Amino acid sequence: MSAKTKEQLNELYRNIREISILRSCESLLDWDERTYMPRNASEHRGNQMALLAGIAHERFVSPRIGELIGNLTNDGVKLADDTPDAANVREIKRVYEKAIKVPKSLVEELSRTIVLSQGAWQEARAKSDFNSFQTWMEKVVSLKRQVAEAVGYRKTPYDALLDDFEPGVTTEIITGVFAGLRNELVELIARIKDSGKAPDRGIIARNFAIERQEQFGKEAASAIGFDFASGRLDVTVHPFCTGIGPTDVRITTRYDENHFPQAFFGILHEAGHGIYEQGLPKEHYGIPCGDSVSLGIHESQSRMWENLVGRSRPFWQYFFPRAQAIFPEPLKGVSLEQFYFAVNDVRPSFIRVEADEATYNLHILLRFEIESAFFNGDLQIGDVPGIWRERFQKYFGITPKNDAAGCLQDVHWSAGLIGYFPTYTLGNLYAAQFFAKAKSDLGNIEQSFAAGDFKGLLGWLRENIHKHGQRYRAEELVKRVTSQPLSHKPLMEYLNGKFGELYGI
Amino acid sequence: MSAKTKEQLNELYRNIREISILRSCESLLDWDERTYMPRNASEHRGNQMALLAGIAHERFVSPRIGELIGNLTNDGVKLADDTPDAANVREIKRVYEKAIKVPKSLVEELSRTIVLSQGAWQEARAKSDFNSFQTWMEKVVSLKRQVAEAVGYRKTPYDALLDDFEPGVTTEIITGVFAGLRNELVELIARIKDSGKAPDRGIIARNFAIERQEQFGKEAASAIGFDFASGRLDVTVHPFCTGIGPTDVRITTRYDENHFPQAFFGILHEAGHGIYEQGLPKEHYGIPCGDSVSLGIHESQSRMWENLVGRSRPFWQYFFPRAQAIFPEPLKGVSLEQFYFAVNDVRPSFIRVEADEATYNLHILLRFEIESAFFNGDLQIGDVPGIWRERFQKYFGITPKNDAAGCLQDVHWSAGLIGYFPTYTLGNLYAAQFFAKAKSDLGNIEQSFAAGDFKGLLGWLRENIHKHGQRYRAEELVKRVTSQPLSHKPLMEYLNGKFGELYGI
Repeated sequence: MSAKTKEQLNELYRNIREISILRSCESLLDWDERTYMPRNASEHRGNQMALLAGIAHERFVSPRIGELIGNLTNDGVKLADDTPDAANVREIKRVYEKAIKVPKSLVEELSRTIVLSQGAWQEARAKSDFNSFQTWMEKVVSLKRQVAEAVGYRKTPYDALLDDFEPGVTTEIITGVFAGLRNELVELIARIKDSGKAPDRGIIARNFAIERQEQFGKEAASAIGFDFASGRLDVTVHPFCTGIGPTDVRITTRYDENHFPQAFFGILHEAGHGIYEQGLPKEHYGIPCGDSVSLGIHESQSRMWENLVGRSRPFWQYFFPRAQAIFPEPLKGVSLEQFYFAVNDVRPSFIRVEADEATYNLHILLRFEIESAFFNGDLQIGDVPGIWRERFQKYFGITPKNDAAGCLQDVHWSAGLIGYFPTYTLGNLYAAQFFAKAKSDLGNIEQSFAAGDFKGLLGWLRENIHKHGQRYRAEELVKRVTSQPLSHKPLMEYLNGKFGELYGI
Repeated sequence: MSAKTKEQLNELYRNIREISILRSCESLLDWDERTYMPRNASEHRGNQMALLAGIAHERFVSPRIGELIGNLTNDGVKLADDTPDAANVREIKRVYEKAIKVPKSLVEELSRTIVLSQGAWQEARAKSDFNSFQTWMEKVVSLKRQVAEAVGYRKTPYDALLDDFEPGVTTEIITGVFAGLRNELVELIARIKDSGKAPDRGIIARNFAIERQEQFGKEAASAIGFDFASGRLDVTVHPFCTGIGPTDVRITTRYDENHFPQAFFGILHEAGHGIYEQGLPKEHYGIPCGDSVSLGIHESQSRMWENLVGRSRPFWQYFFPRAQAIFPEPLKGVSLEQFYFAVNDVRPSFIRVEADEATYNLHILLRFEIESAFFNGDLQIGDVPGIWRERFQKYFGITPKNDAAGCLQDVHWSAGLIGYFPTYTLGNLYAAQFFAKAKSDLGNIEQSFAAGDFKGLLGWLRENIHKHGQRYRAEELVKRVTSQPLSHKPLMEYLNGKFGELYGI
């Protein structure tokens, strides 16, 4: 690399790092807003956030960044090379080119509209009245279509939206993988329903004191690898994980005194996100090779720790005696098997965020089918409630009694987050595919879990996924790590194996 | 005002407001660092703070700000006018002119030196070894002298430092007021010592459960006017108050289970600062007329609520029954008079931050005399320990056994905060002078306190002090509000009256 190339790379990195640090200040402001900010402080917080976002945006879309990218790609850095520098320039270029293509007036109209549309959605959901929301949803979709046209896409406008959350993944890829998943999932869930077996869910709905839930949740999060010296756990209505800095990763949860799984698996889930953030290479902080790949890969980390590890029998072989020591009253006379079955109860239900590990993906497939259809113009917004009910009956065997329990339940569409839903199931698919490979690489992984030792899996994730940052895009990462393209098979094998045994089917 | 003047004022205000909002982001980062930030996050927090501070500074010293100030003062805005606009321009001009006079290299050397010098001070204090700190202190003083020379001063270099914390107040003014105070204070303290009377301090050193201290502290802070919907209370090693926004004012305290006054009066003190911040005019947020006058005026608000109100008999006539209900065990059989005397114990001691209301000011006078002397070149740094011991004996009648309990006890000099100490006693002087006027204006103020009603005093402070922001400098504000120049007499009258009665002297 020439001295000039080196110098321009350094200038580019210095600029991008400063923008990342500015955005990390926004992240702290956002965390504070959701945790400890006084009630009356919202307006000023909005002014603070807008100012920082404005400065960061202005710095990012500056002509000098474009110039540096241009110079570097003309001279010295081949984007297809397998080096961190090539990956950094490739990713900065990708985001920069999208950012400068969207007119400022469109960005501003969209952000104004989204605030109002979310308000309209909240009212519509409360009254279960889709009609009052329809115009707003049409407006959001129309503005998002303008964004898609401005930035461009491979085959369908929906591809442009996917690219924001899962760069490189297209409607075509997802459609293919989801199709296989749908048929097998519908069949598994029907067989579970027909098995006539069900766990005693009362066990996990007894009284679990909140301070002890917190203590136990922190113990488990630490055991799987979340570092509390570089992070914290707080309480919020909507749990989340935020990486404020390379050694400042904060997770939140919400406790229900009479429902053990809510906080416990929520903490494992957010800790999974946090472990990924804490494992990103610190020397690349602030530039793409120090950043997470995509929402789907992020979700693969949270889902792996929450479900494939946290809802596994070996995990509870180790943790159930601890649980009994911490909650002697509610878990008196409960066996490991009863408890394990109770936290793995599968049954069709209407609300996505309350769904179990198996039915969850059907909720996502339904949303993907509907949103890709209406976004690409193959479905009228007014027809969404009808299609929703019809497909829900087909996939789950039940029909929601109203739109509040149906197509109005999620905030995403009102917030312009179209193209976001698929990343949840992509996360589950990646998780299963990575986990199968980790098991085959590591051998005795379940024996380690049963001894409370999660270092093997953690090390495997650090080495195969975390340390790369954005060096490889999701699609390529999956192929590199597992030697296979993304497929629905590992997830179905895992679900069939686990629930086949539990439900005797 | 011409349309052009109006336009330029608006541009100036818009810029200064944005800088204030940026600084308010720094305030949140700083609050978080001291309350909830994970242990390992310090380095990244340093990078965040440095970046925001750099952007704010760069924007402030920009030539455009200078141009706007120049245009406005040439044309349209007379700085001596009694209008908010005149005050805003006057104050922005004052700070701007100081900021551009100090070379960047000096600012950077000073901030590097201060970090190292504080480290050296910590070690020196631990070993009570002034010699190992002397060179660092000389270096800090020499750099601060360069700053003073760069920005200029009225009569002595020390005036330039005072101007950072208490704009407009000079060494000459302070020397005059402090001289009268010193003689009368030394005499009062000697008389108290000779009275042979002392309260039973054991009463307030019993076991006071921390959660109840918090509950009671919040109750009292709310009662005097701190708004918890626009603020919060947290725990830190070094208590402070920070105004993050016009409706986001946060205070902290530290609890000692076996020493009731620590947290309780600490909360009243910080709430006093917070009430001032919450009372500043929101329509002027981010510009001088929405900002506090000076450290001394700020301290007058905290000291008034902590001491003149919070340690008064009427206050405890109302709150002592509440205290007994909340702490039935430790306060069993204790009378109001015993309790009132115990929280007003006066006795000479070595450590400033542990001093009572009366002896506290002697600690400050001593520091002012010494720091103004060494800064103006009338005292060698090497002679500080000797002078300290000699004067301490003269004022307090006792001699510290080592420098850790003497001239090494405070962080200020190592941190370059020379000229800061006098603002503590100025705060007490302002507080007594304002309070005397409030009492004469409001009449039945003590009767209201005894009924738990503090709205009269709060309203008086809002109207006479808070609502002005920086419209008037401290010296003028005192004259406007009390019709008298600053004097030591109201403070001595208050102390003589209160302690004369308590100690029967």
